[in-house]
Amino acid sequence: MRAITIRNGAFSDEQIDAPNPGPGQVLVRTLVCGICGTDIHARHHIHDFVAGLKRAGGALPIDPDGSMVLGHEFTAEILDHGPETSGTLKPGTRVVGLPLVTGPQGPEFIGYSNRFPGALAQQMILTEKLLFEVPNGLSDEISALTEPFAVGAHAVARAGITGNVVVMVVGCGPIGLSVIAALRARGIGPVIAMDYAAGRRRFAEQLGADEAVDPAQEDAASVWARHRAGRGDRRAVAFECVGRPQVPQQIIDAIPRRALVVVVGNSLEPSTIDQVVAFNKELDICFSVTYSPGEFRQTLHDLAEGRIGAEPLVTGVMPPEQTEAAFDALADGEHHAKLLIDFRT
Amino acid sequence: MRAITIRNGAFSDEQIDAPNPGPGQVLVRTLVCGICGTDIHARHHIHDFVAGLKRAGGALPIDPDGSMVLGHEFTAEILDHGPETSGTLKPGTRVVGLPLVTGPQGPEFIGYSNRFPGALAQQMILTEKLLFEVPNGLSDEISALTEPFAVGAHAVARAGITGNVVVMVVGCGPIGLSVIAALRARGIGPVIAMDYAAGRRRFAEQLGADEAVDPAQEDAASVWARHRAGRGDRRAVAFECVGRPQVPQQIIDAIPRRALVVVVGNSLEPSTIDQVVAFNKELDICFSVTYSPGEFRQTLHDLAEGRIGAEPLVTGVMPPEQTEAAFDALADGEHHAKLLIDFRT
Repeated sequence: MRAITIRNGAFSDEQIDAPNPGPGQVLVRTLVCGICGTDIHARHHIHDFVAGLKRAGGALPIDPDGSMVLGHEFTAEILDHGPETSGTLKPGTRVVGLPLVTGPQGPEFIGYSNRFPGALAQQMILTEKLLFEVPNGLSDEISALTEPFAVGAHAVARAGITGNVVVMVVGCGPIGLSVIAALRARGIGPVIAMDYAAGRRRFAEQLGADEAVDPAQEDAASVWARHRAGRGDRRAVAFECVGRPQVPQQIIDAIPRRALVVVVGNSLEPSTIDQVVAFNKELDICFSVTYSPGEFRQTLHDLAEGRIGAEPLVTGVMPPEQTEAAFDALADGEHHAKLLIDFRT
Repeated sequence: MRAITIRNGAFSDEQIDAPNPGPGQVLVRTLVCGICGTDIHARHHIHDFVAGLKRAGGALPIDPDGSMVLGHEFTAEILDHGPETSGTLKPGTRVVGLPLVTGPQGPEFIGYSNRFPGALAQQMILTEKLLFEVPNGLSDEISALTEPFAVGAHAVARAGITGNVVVMVVGCGPIGLSVIAALRARGIGPVIAMDYAAGRRRFAEQLGADEAVDPAQEDAASVWARHRAGRGDRRAVAFECVGRPQVPQQIIDAIPRRALVVVVGNSLEPSTIDQVVAFNKELDICFSVTYSPGEFRQTLHDLAEGRIGAEPLVTGVMPPEQTEAAFDALADGEHHAKLLIDFRT
């Protein structure tokens, strides 16, 4: 089958063996595959990525020098069922699902594995119990966004917030946008988006941010003061969605007392935290990664039923041979929110 | 009146003017005054201390080059009432209270002020509404520990934990001991105390720690594994009570996934946090400082009713002229938990 492999940062458009589903697994045909910020980072920094997981006690059996097929944001179509499956989802059913499988070496992450191809290939192995049927009327392109939007749904659930808050989302790349969408889907706000890039601020507003601020024009402390004037009873909540090591402290310096900082952006480099400030402000800091199956399914329904209006984010659908160009375009600019690679033809 | 003043790290035993109570304030006679870890730090690092508060947006009007009288852990006796007071607590009543007053320059902290003397003086000004009568039968020495034990009560309240946890208290100085006492008073456990010093581990056990471990003998990861074997449903909760910049990351590295880290020790130097680890473990980190009036009162009652057995911690009661010697003894060793300066004679 055709697959876009990557090894040492170099893509190859090649033929590889199609995978075989094991117990509890299904074989699917990839329809579309989205590219994630972590993919862009992993392209050149896979060693750092694996080392970071190892420091955190993660046991993913990735050989960073080996070949892999990226892609964990996808819509696919059921082709066949392995042993010990229920077969409830018939061949031809469109599905999305959690990119997790268990192989001979234990749990693996689809898209970051040397053994299981990701969605930048014509076929994949997925776990039957982690799949959800795509509702009729929801396009392949939008359902492929379930995974990145589930990241925001989980971060908002982790924050444990309902009403009586003022929320700032720092960074409006795909993660920040998914947080904004989840806040809006749950009716939480006001939501202030912060990003230096006009293009990203526009996406934030399209997803429902009440205001999108350029930090070069107004600093975060001023934005907090303006939005909390006369409503100091509202708790300040910031979502760190940039993933650069200096950003948590910038947020800590600007945020009001007794606030909550949810770190959703993943910086592989260490951050320096001025504890005195976090301490005297009595902050809560919570780290949020991935999502649960329930949050994934909820996100699929939020997309299907219009609580998340994701259409403006799909800024390009490109053929497999343009995968490298898509990575370059995403790494480079602010004009794209989500580029999808199309495996339907 | 007699006061032990400090300026540029040097103590003086001198006569200063007695203070006058303003509106809502009372004049008290100091009975005993405890020495706190922050006092020991502030003795030589008052500039860093003030700069840290300023970075955190704190507005305490302290001139670090000016003279001050330390002391914010005390038992005192009512002498006189200022204007706009209720006079409910008659002269001669023994009291403890929150070390906060409002002066012409705004809120000030008793013990860290150039205008209001702390409890290392014969008399002080306190805020009437923040005072609590010491119950009969509770000694001056033990009631003076209300303040430091309230710090632990607040940290445990901030953690929001009840049952189904395994708790590790890292560092068994006065802050760590106050956390252990508060956990025990609320029936939360098991509580494992960690400290390199045998003397501090003994204090921890006297306050009710289930086990006190020397990290040189067994590392934290092993302690967690041992205590969570067969009860992985219990959430791991660590209290950082050391206040050194490298300790939060040591805790983050050793702690199980989905844990809570409560930072109660105050490091004035920045900490470096390996975000990847905190992120992939989905940790919560909460910073805890001071206490509420309700937590203060609860702690006083915990001491009076024996839910906190603080007696072993009072390792010395010394006259005012030995204040400097007491600071040196506390800074130096592990043999003292709490030294009190006696102003009764």
